[in-house]
Amino acid sequence: MISLLDIRTRIADGTLSAADSVRAARERIAARDARIGAVLRTAPEAAVPDTGPLAGIAVGIKDIIDTADMATECGSAIHAGWRPRADAAIVSRLRALGAVPLAKTATTAFAGLDPAATVNPHDPDHTPGGSSSGSAASVAAGMLPLALGTQTGGSVIRPAAFCGVAAIKPSFRLLPTVGVKTFSWALDTVGLFGASVADIAHALALIADRPGIETAAPERPRLALCLQDFAGSPDADALVALERTARAAERAGASVRDLVLPEPFARAWAAHPTVQDFEARQALAWEYAEHRDALPPVLRGQLDRAQDLSAADYDGARREAHRARRLLKELFSDVDAILTVSSVGRAPHGLGSTGDARFNRLWTLMGVPCVNVPVPGDGLPLGVQVIARFGDDGRALAVARAIEGALASA
Amino acid sequence: MISLLDIRTRIADGTLSAADSVRAARERIAARDARIGAVLRTAPEAAVPDTGPLAGIAVGIKDIIDTADMATECGSAIHAGWRPRADAAIVSRLRALGAVPLAKTATTAFAGLDPAATVNPHDPDHTPGGSSSGSAASVAAGMLPLALGTQTGGSVIRPAAFCGVAAIKPSFRLLPTVGVKTFSWALDTVGLFGASVADIAHALALIADRPGIETAAPERPRLALCLQDFAGSPDADALVALERTARAAERAGASVRDLVLPEPFARAWAAHPTVQDFEARQALAWEYAEHRDALPPVLRGQLDRAQDLSAADYDGARREAHRARRLLKELFSDVDAILTVSSVGRAPHGLGSTGDARFNRLWTLMGVPCVNVPVPGDGLPLGVQVIARFGDDGRALAVARAIEGALASA
Repeated sequence: MISLLDIRTRIADGTLSAADSVRAARERIAARDARIGAVLRTAPEAAVPDTGPLAGIAVGIKDIIDTADMATECGSAIHAGWRPRADAAIVSRLRALGAVPLAKTATTAFAGLDPAATVNPHDPDHTPGGSSSGSAASVAAGMLPLALGTQTGGSVIRPAAFCGVAAIKPSFRLLPTVGVKTFSWALDTVGLFGASVADIAHALALIADRPGIETAAPERPRLALCLQDFAGSPDADALVALERTARAAERAGASVRDLVLPEPFARAWAAHPTVQDFEARQALAWEYAEHRDALPPVLRGQLDRAQDLSAADYDGARREAHRARRLLKELFSDVDAILTVSSVGRAPHGLGSTGDARFNRLWTLMGVPCVNVPVPGDGLPLGVQVIARFGDDGRALAVARAIEGALASA
Repeated sequence: MISLLDIRTRIADGTLSAADSVRAARERIAARDARIGAVLRTAPEAAVPDTGPLAGIAVGIKDIIDTADMATECGSAIHAGWRPRADAAIVSRLRALGAVPLAKTATTAFAGLDPAATVNPHDPDHTPGGSSSGSAASVAAGMLPLALGTQTGGSVIRPAAFCGVAAIKPSFRLLPTVGVKTFSWALDTVGLFGASVADIAHALALIADRPGIETAAPERPRLALCLQDFAGSPDADALVALERTARAAERAGASVRDLVLPEPFARAWAAHPTVQDFEARQALAWEYAEHRDALPPVLRGQLDRAQDLSAADYDGARREAHRARRLLKELFSDVDAILTVSSVGRAPHGLGSTGDARFNRLWTLMGVPCVNVPVPGDGLPLGVQVIARFGDDGRALAVARAIEGALASA
């Protein structure tokens, strides 16, 4: 993979130019993407900024995020060829930092569950996960050092785990979603994919203009190991990887205790789809009313069922979320981070499904920062998920970095 | 003015067809708007639905709200001629109810403070208020029975007060903002303008699919009369109108006590512009980066200054808002509604300013429902503002309806 920090170091010491770095990204896409299908289109050739803290960084932009210089098709024929007038806020922010939003990356239709055409760079017979399929795969395949995705259920952490890349779903609304096609406004969160935790911490600190995100460093992290029983069991090798991570963290100085999430979290977990689908019904009302037949089957069925949700269902689901959020705040009073699996297991075989978000969706509903840390090993990638309290993205990243280091030296 | 409920009654009893009702709206626009400048463009002629609970209702859509069949220009040459791919969620919802989104109504540029070209229907030498200038004026001039606006500071309640129409800024996110050009995602709220409180209650109950909004009815409303001293003094005649309203409400059976908002509300009020401008800097980042010179002067200056706001400023402002929200919830434990002025006074002379939102912005930041009730009298209109607790839009409307009735019979 291509490290953002490595590129920046080489640019700083004069051994690489920003323009050459971006050109190299174009060449890697041209050489590698035919077999992966992560990149839908690239920006027209243009002058590459040579100043700014992210100069020379080519970024993949999930294709539900507006770009003024490239079509934004939301993974659907309904929006084929669509050119937004303006860049999304997050794209403008990248440009202001000197980065080049170089490529639009494949998304499942409207960031739903119907698969995109992308394959897993580690094995083309396996899904890369979704909905941010192309963003995760483009980083995993070493084409881009940074990519933007979004998560409503598990659409950042799951593909990151399946593709073996570092990723963060930040605290809710840490990054602006203006200009991002909405699925659920209470859940949709812009996230980052990169080659390492340090890379995404550096990028997030700059994009959010919060230097503390990169410098936070709890000395001996207090970790709570958590299984989310209400979501069912992960695969055996995911549990082994989680356990191995916990032991490596302990050896590196962390304390680890078990955490069983009390009942209100199970109820919040169960409430997530109601919040999501009640809002999706409104957010995608035009597509459903005018182009229902052109919607892919899983999303169409989901929206069909969502027509029956009532405002009372939605209010009830939001109340469950509020209760669990209050409780989670208390849980974090003596815990730096929760450690749990990033996904059910390795990327499933076949391209007919993007996998399951059941170990992610509670945390999206809670709005808390989640980081995927790849767990080194044989076969397709596995990841662990590091979760911190709302607003403390720096702590989540610091703990994740410590874990990444502990795993590397284990 | 044209009453939505009256149209619906006539359609129900067979004395008016939906198509004739919409045709009449087109004719009123053609006859009256030349001197007012509220309507920017109308939808292409198309079949008018004759079923649905809002069939026959022609609606004005503020021109920062996306429409697939009409340009959406955000009051700015930067977006001139822009045709969104999809309708905004709220527009799709109107269509699903049988309504006809007939006209795009004038907005100040990006819903900021630089005036639109609309004049006050009561006196063309006076501002109609902003930023939902055309929506308020089109209802006030009897062209349309219903119009959509948005409020970030006071952009629904202020123009409603200046134009003498009923309006509600509902609870935050009661109505979806998907497809609405963002100024501040924590504040922007879609609101409704109509000829009477009963009209907007009926429309809101249908659009939000919450019948209780229309049927709530506290028997003897407990009102708290509140001056917002931290925002300065209203004009003398606004105070007289407020006092007159309180006495009329008492005669109609309400209890009225004085309320002095404690210090945290003053701090929240002062924090509003920080939340707003920190988010506007991101939401309008593309326009600022690519087209700064084409921005109107007040907005340009506002965004210039917003570049200096820090994440810490924003976090601090949000904390003030949270504190005040918690306190407000307690205040509402024995109060049905707060009664305060809707604006500093009558619409100011001249078209160089849209007036001042200082009596509105606290309530937008609190996310609570606010209703403007016109106070009958001589000269340009005045309004009082009825405010209920978060999520209880039905109570705000029920109290407002009672007050409207009390004023009419006073």
